[in-house]
Amino acid sequence: MAKEITPREKDYARWYTDVVTRSTLADYSPVKGCMVIRPHGYALWENMRDALDRMFKATGHVNAYFPLFIPKSFLSKEAEHVEGFAKECAIVTHTRLKGVEEDGKRFVVPDPDSRLEEELIVRPTSETIIYAMYAKWIQSWRDLPLLINQWANVVRWEMRTRLFLRTTEFLWQEGHTAHATHEEAIEEALTILEIYRKFAEEWLAIPVLTGTKTEKEKFAGAVTTWCIEAMMQDGKALQAGTSHDLGQNFARAFDLKYQTREGNWEYAWNTSWGVSTRLIGALVMTHGDDDGLVLPPRVAPLQVVIVPIWRNDEQQRATIAAGRELLAKLREAGFRVTLDERDNVNPGFKYAEWELRGVPLRLELGPRDLEKNAVMAVSRLDRQKTSIPFDDLPAKVGELLDGIQAAMLERARKFRDERTREVDDWAAFEREIEAGGFLRARHCGDRACEEEIQEKTKATVRVQPDGEPDDPGPCVHCGRDAPRRVVFARAY
Amino acid sequence: MAKEITPREKDYARWYTDVVTRSTLADYSPVKGCMVIRPHGYALWENMRDALDRMFKATGHVNAYFPLFIPKSFLSKEAEHVEGFAKECAIVTHTRLKGVEEDGKRFVVPDPDSRLEEELIVRPTSETIIYAMYAKWIQSWRDLPLLINQWANVVRWEMRTRLFLRTTEFLWQEGHTAHATHEEAIEEALTILEIYRKFAEEWLAIPVLTGTKTEKEKFAGAVTTWCIEAMMQDGKALQAGTSHDLGQNFARAFDLKYQTREGNWEYAWNTSWGVSTRLIGALVMTHGDDDGLVLPPRVAPLQVVIVPIWRNDEQQRATIAAGRELLAKLREAGFRVTLDERDNVNPGFKYAEWELRGVPLRLELGPRDLEKNAVMAVSRLDRQKTSIPFDDLPAKVGELLDGIQAAMLERARKFRDERTREVDDWAAFEREIEAGGFLRARHCGDRACEEEIQEKTKATVRVQPDGEPDDPGPCVHCGRDAPRRVVFARAY
Repeated sequence: MAKEITPREKDYARWYTDVVTRSTLADYSPVKGCMVIRPHGYALWENMRDALDRMFKATGHVNAYFPLFIPKSFLSKEAEHVEGFAKECAIVTHTRLKGVEEDGKRFVVPDPDSRLEEELIVRPTSETIIYAMYAKWIQSWRDLPLLINQWANVVRWEMRTRLFLRTTEFLWQEGHTAHATHEEAIEEALTILEIYRKFAEEWLAIPVLTGTKTEKEKFAGAVTTWCIEAMMQDGKALQAGTSHDLGQNFARAFDLKYQTREGNWEYAWNTSWGVSTRLIGALVMTHGDDDGLVLPPRVAPLQVVIVPIWRNDEQQRATIAAGRELLAKLREAGFRVTLDERDNVNPGFKYAEWELRGVPLRLELGPRDLEKNAVMAVSRLDRQKTSIPFDDLPAKVGELLDGIQAAMLERARKFRDERTREVDDWAAFEREIEAGGFLRARHCGDRACEEEIQEKTKATVRVQPDGEPDDPGPCVHCGRDAPRRVVFARAY
Repeated sequence: MAKEITPREKDYARWYTDVVTRSTLADYSPVKGCMVIRPHGYALWENMRDALDRMFKATGHVNAYFPLFIPKSFLSKEAEHVEGFAKECAIVTHTRLKGVEEDGKRFVVPDPDSRLEEELIVRPTSETIIYAMYAKWIQSWRDLPLLINQWANVVRWEMRTRLFLRTTEFLWQEGHTAHATHEEAIEEALTILEIYRKFAEEWLAIPVLTGTKTEKEKFAGAVTTWCIEAMMQDGKALQAGTSHDLGQNFARAFDLKYQTREGNWEYAWNTSWGVSTRLIGALVMTHGDDDGLVLPPRVAPLQVVIVPIWRNDEQQRATIAAGRELLAKLREAGFRVTLDERDNVNPGFKYAEWELRGVPLRLELGPRDLEKNAVMAVSRLDRQKTSIPFDDLPAKVGELLDGIQAAMLERARKFRDERTREVDDWAAFEREIEAGGFLRARHCGDRACEEEIQEKTKATVRVQPDGEPDDPGPCVHCGRDAPRRVVFARAY
């Protein structure tokens, strides 16, 4: 709390780092590119994980756990896949440390005798090891579909890292499924896309566009990649989740076959899909303000903080006693709530600290409130104050939290929609992309054209939105025929 | 289900592997020493994790997440600690793969240009990285105690591995705490020991001894190691959880100091503690029988399976319809239950399969049961049958499950107590250790003597039980004075 947060206007990137570290969501670690998720951040992740996990299980998925290490030869089996990850992987080569002495100093080095015959890659994603196991488990059409998810850590060696958004190690879930038909696999990929959309909007209050990635932007090894795409407050896009139709690419690479009802052997059809702790970065950048985090009530580690206010010992005793009653009552009703009894800092300090940490609702409890048998509720979102009679608790707290949750989504959607423009010619594109936001423009679909656009403007096709009618016209860049508009933006 | 399980009498080790793999708890992976935890095994782990997690949180602990990688120099800072783990660690040396061509074949190798300046060790445990972070976060006595736990994967390179019991990678929780005084740290270590004991006995139905490890057996870097120690059905001991008083060893190594209320700077006192997926191996070996797993109801992924029985289409329709009603009723009441509607296998096959997978209670639902408005409940533990009128559901199911849970602990305790003997002379020790079980014998406490005993008999001191009165006499091995009895056994 000692230092100010850099205002967004001044330096958005520094604002982000300030908020993440000072709100104690996360911290830098001494390991290059790796972060520590602190208790406040991890409690947030637990709430997100549990909500998603329930949605996965409700749609027939089960969890399992596959090895951290992937033999080099496995990663190499799917050609595009290894291409996609070869440049950013942690490679294990030895299994013992050995003490050596040099210049009278003792230190440890990898023991050359412990060199592995085949190197192991710390998983950047687990398609290869998982489909190798599925090939062992799946024999018959009766074994399909197989719908498995895992919650795990993965490693992608990154040169330029940012807390939550891009770190060498991150936490995620990765679903991997096997189906008898392509239709069924596509249906699965879309079921998950809808879960992701629902989760982003209804839990995180982050509005997202859904649709497919272009060939250039799709996952290494996929036939089609669907995504949910969000807009941050600086107008940049953030890919918040992906769901892939893998076709039979991995089934062929790992000989994943099943015997049909008719007795023939056929390759299975696979999907994979994932969201990661990156979503926490999206939360921060969608809702945060110059005072810190603003967390949606449904996933906030703490939904309510009660701050007693006193000027003398008697008032201290009375407001703390009332605060404890309130705490018990709200806990009983299932809210995540705390009471700040500290006597070494004043109420103003407490307000600022809990605002920094994003608690959606503050209940101020002073002597005058007590006299009226009421508390003063203050919303983190807009500081709106509501005096709540004790008799209306806890129902009224639930209403206020629901209101904050809805208003957050509404505000973010309005922000995004206002920063989404249709652009029809290249001059306008180049000018508008500088202002940030989403540009809806026609694109011919040619990869080289897409790459030129990126070179010139740093913008990429973020998503080819699902379910839009045809709207043919000339490509915004090269002028060739284009069937409809896609969404361009600069992205995290 | 195709193959028989090897009987315990014939080959206990093979019985164990058969049960673990055929019950689909886990499978071997193509990565040497690493296992796959299959959905049935992972669901079991989730139930165990959730129960423990609630107990940790109820005692003031919070979760966080620290990096997978530990810089070599960190691991080396605590001398005993690096000694303990140097011979069994996965070392990351490179961060990119590079395609090369040789004899016309293309393959990938670690890119020499991506060699790390300092190697990273995949965490075998996280004391070093965690206390380095605590040194950053802790300034004042007001920041203490700090009570953090993490659920994570760790890697210890093992030459001889066994599913769940000893694998290169495993899942666990590791708690790490910092305190202002040594007394408080010891109190914390004992609070956790009691949580572990309670969890083992009340949830897993595994009776355990609690007490300290000898100097020889304690954790590398600890002042004192407490443990919970269980006995498997082959009479061997299994260390099921440990809780360490780390004194100021790590605080000194990582300069973890705090300012006291009086303004002085002092080193903090630390504890660490953990249990792992090894507990699943303990579950299997404590309760399993020649038909497969026997799972305690409180952690079983499925507590109840309903098997409809029919001889014709009409009966099929009727029993399945009644089964579905029953399923809904039991789910509503909070039981984990499934209905086996498969029509390609007969009831006998289903019974065997669900018994193999350890489901505590089977409800058989045939035409005659339907006529009586009842189901026939069969306990996995002893096959005892109880006809339950529909009207007594779901209460009676709860009673039966509670009975099974209690009987499992009872049976395991009886087994252990019968195989625990007092031994006073060396000839008896050498003879009795061959029969397995726990030997309560006096020991002088000398490390060399303890090592000789191990060399001669493969037995180690498993635990120095807490809270026993003095019982002085001659050391069972060397005859020197010994204050009391300790527990010897051969161990996993």
